[in-house]
Amino acid sequence: MPKVLRVAVPPLVAAVVAAGAAPLPAQSTGLRAQVEQYVATNQKAIVGELVELVSIPNVAADRENIRRNTAWLQAALARRGFRAEVLETAGNPLVYGEMRVPGAARTLLLYAHYDGQPVDPPQWKQPGPFTPILRDGRLEDGGRELPGLGTRERFEPDWRLYARSASDDKSPIVALCAALDALKAAGLAPTSHLRVVLDGEEEAGSTSLTAAIGRHREKLSADAMLILDGPVHPSERPTLVFGARGNLTFNLTVYGPKFALHSGHYGNWVPNPAMRLAQLLATFKDDSGRVLVEGFYDGLEPLRAEEQAMLDAVPDDPDQLKRLFGVSAAESPDRSLQEGLQMPSFNVRGLASAFVGANARTIIPDRAEAAIDVRLVKETPAAAILDKVRAHIRKQGYQIVSEDPDDTTRARYSKIVKLTVRGDGTNAYRTSPLLPVSRQLAEAMTRVFGDPPVRIRTSGGTVPIAPFIEALGFPAISVPTVNFDNNQHGENENLRLGHFFRGIVTVAAALSM
Amino acid sequence: MPKVLRVAVPPLVAAVVAAGAAPLPAQSTGLRAQVEQYVATNQKAIVGELVELVSIPNVAADRENIRRNTAWLQAALARRGFRAEVLETAGNPLVYGEMRVPGAARTLLLYAHYDGQPVDPPQWKQPGPFTPILRDGRLEDGGRELPGLGTRERFEPDWRLYARSASDDKSPIVALCAALDALKAAGLAPTSHLRVVLDGEEEAGSTSLTAAIGRHREKLSADAMLILDGPVHPSERPTLVFGARGNLTFNLTVYGPKFALHSGHYGNWVPNPAMRLAQLLATFKDDSGRVLVEGFYDGLEPLRAEEQAMLDAVPDDPDQLKRLFGVSAAESPDRSLQEGLQMPSFNVRGLASAFVGANARTIIPDRAEAAIDVRLVKETPAAAILDKVRAHIRKQGYQIVSEDPDDTTRARYSKIVKLTVRGDGTNAYRTSPLLPVSRQLAEAMTRVFGDPPVRIRTSGGTVPIAPFIEALGFPAISVPTVNFDNNQHGENENLRLGHFFRGIVTVAAALSM
Repeated sequence: MPKVLRVAVPPLVAAVVAAGAAPLPAQSTGLRAQVEQYVATNQKAIVGELVELVSIPNVAADRENIRRNTAWLQAALARRGFRAEVLETAGNPLVYGEMRVPGAARTLLLYAHYDGQPVDPPQWKQPGPFTPILRDGRLEDGGRELPGLGTRERFEPDWRLYARSASDDKSPIVALCAALDALKAAGLAPTSHLRVVLDGEEEAGSTSLTAAIGRHREKLSADAMLILDGPVHPSERPTLVFGARGNLTFNLTVYGPKFALHSGHYGNWVPNPAMRLAQLLATFKDDSGRVLVEGFYDGLEPLRAEEQAMLDAVPDDPDQLKRLFGVSAAESPDRSLQEGLQMPSFNVRGLASAFVGANARTIIPDRAEAAIDVRLVKETPAAAILDKVRAHIRKQGYQIVSEDPDDTTRARYSKIVKLTVRGDGTNAYRTSPLLPVSRQLAEAMTRVFGDPPVRIRTSGGTVPIAPFIEALGFPAISVPTVNFDNNQHGENENLRLGHFFRGIVTVAAALSM
Repeated sequence: MPKVLRVAVPPLVAAVVAAGAAPLPAQSTGLRAQVEQYVATNQKAIVGELVELVSIPNVAADRENIRRNTAWLQAALARRGFRAEVLETAGNPLVYGEMRVPGAARTLLLYAHYDGQPVDPPQWKQPGPFTPILRDGRLEDGGRELPGLGTRERFEPDWRLYARSASDDKSPIVALCAALDALKAAGLAPTSHLRVVLDGEEEAGSTSLTAAIGRHREKLSADAMLILDGPVHPSERPTLVFGARGNLTFNLTVYGPKFALHSGHYGNWVPNPAMRLAQLLATFKDDSGRVLVEGFYDGLEPLRAEEQAMLDAVPDDPDQLKRLFGVSAAESPDRSLQEGLQMPSFNVRGLASAFVGANARTIIPDRAEAAIDVRLVKETPAAAILDKVRAHIRKQGYQIVSEDPDDTTRARYSKIVKLTVRGDGTNAYRTSPLLPVSRQLAEAMTRVFGDPPVRIRTSGGTVPIAPFIEALGFPAISVPTVNFDNNQHGENENLRLGHFFRGIVTVAAALSM
């Protein structure tokens, strides 16, 4: 078993386990050992299945290859005993599977996506993003290509598979299949009825997915959803994620004179839109990082002690992050990263007005623009925040317009700002980590790995399936498995095989909770 | 005489004179009539001399043609009885002339420049910028080319001569020569000893000019300098200008993380440099346009009643300007344009941070930049203002650096701004309009034109000869003559001939004060 442990668990986790984990309960130690043994014995077949899947191009717009993916996935699910089918949508189809388990009292909906980010092949240090290669380490750390990917029997945990969707999000699908195979080989069955839905448009916004609920509500209903997507915490410890912030993006354009004016001839008389924009933005946030929009934090309750403890237990390394980022202090020095992520943010993501640097001219610019994104939490939906932002801007004396102002508007209002919103925003979702299903999942992982997983109450980024989660109306929890440094969305996406193998154990634990 | 008046004076001024001017003193009415009569009779020769001069290319870097200009100018001055010479400098030479007038008790230094702005010939709607053409009106208003420039005997006041330096600044030199010729024809002499200095590098910063003082202090000394350059007030009325604001430009760069970060993963924890820059800029100015830098207005005294009356008498049309610019109110609604120009300004001339619009990304930018220009007045020299700006920034908790911060600096200071200053700035100059020479000049123009000139206490823009004025140490007053809409510095520079002819009267009045 120690040998297997070394193979399946990356060093950091092994260190944690070795350092002071509670003794493992016999049954779960058994589960872990059984799955690890299965994986160790079947590495060639498991990696082979993943290689086969990532070899099928999966850019959402490539309809022909999308169909090759769905056919492959339907067959893969059917081999595991799912009643599998392809559900048509207005866009790319969903692959769906259902497995009834005698005696199970709970139904889990397992979500993953089979489409991948667009690719720029010349940027890849390999024949192509859909021609997987194996490296003996991380490319950026000098990892070299290992020949014979298709014929190898054994794979070291530090080796990496390089291909589009190796991490995001095909390996979780293969991990699910392997976990079911491993349970079956051990004579075990999942403890829940299973429904699987594989999304073909996640990287394009998952719009068809949410729309599919109307036609397939029964198929998509469950007691809880497990999202098999995303990387584990940067500490590389097994992780559960209970929510994600939403996002609302908008642009502000403050108007000055109709055309840029000589700053000498008119400076101190014609209002300067760049200064006005700065003054307006400054009203949004105080020096301690608190957003000053009235009602911005409405609905946020103080965290319960157990939730606070959960945040405090996340093994972030703020000093290491600060060194990495070159900042000496957090925006609110008393607020931890995890605490910050429980709150909505107000982020100036871009500024523009006339020119800076060598091109700067002594002018009063005609306009100044700011691009904003507000990260939302569950208590602060996009529509309500937008109303409050509008009210805040009006309170600063601004007339809000939606188009460039005409002469009449310019003559009427001294402070004019154009507010343009991109879409309706994406709301946050959050499943209470205190719910029974949340506790059961965390406990199952604790039993299997000996240590509680990192529990992320709200992750900072936004997931396109938040509307799907909201529309389904039952708890959703992410069970990430892949390495954090996977170059997801970029070129040279990769999967550390140690994470992949441990992910199979993670999924098996979830299926056995 | 009414006929001559119509020829020499543009409609706006004629209207003012007709509407309610005091009766002209006999002597000066005589001077005006005499000069106008001379101009009317000698239009062909006067325009011919200007056409000859503007046909010689005069970009400061074109050394060969610069020498053709200096030879022409030296000869032109010599023909008027100046002891004329070419003064060598480290750059382009100065053309210098001296005329002693028996009985004169005052020496005037007359300044003009013979170099012109760089040209982009394809942009000109004529064979070239140094191939002058005549139009029957303003190009932008449909003015058409009139053939036979070289053979015409008479020129209408609304006709325009199109060529580089037609307005800026060769016609004032020809106007000076013509004024001297007209006085001579009337049997009159200037009332001052005259020194003329013609600068060959004004459009390139006039650096050799100021340096020349050391070698030629005696030649350049006088009781007052008259600057024959610039357009009259937009009302087109005869104008005197007693000062110009200076300028100090600098860039501010506020630093965030070393590289742009995902705004979801780190928003609310890693400080945002765009918001910080906005907050910093907002500390510089209150909502009423007052600059909040401590000591920014130090030394500014309340205006004397006569100075205030002078500002109030400037025939600006704020409502027309606001309509033109599309702004409903001035930055400080109670402050007139002329009042604003008596004070230093703080102008944000550019902003940049990451991207806005379609390219915007949900990131925390790594930096945010602002380009600033401060227009200076006489009481607020560049060096002192820069010190105060630095102190103000430090008071906001910022560490000021002059290069991108290294890791040590980043680790040490939470708020870091790079301040880079372009050059040393250019100081303002101002000659009190209450000085005897200022009054004498205004009175001479009032006598000649019947109405007081528009007196500009401080013009908003910055002139490169301010250091020259400062170094000379005696009063300097601008006597502009050319039309405001002359496309100076751009393509299709032009001179309205009515302004040119009136300008000869203006210069004659100044020489006779």
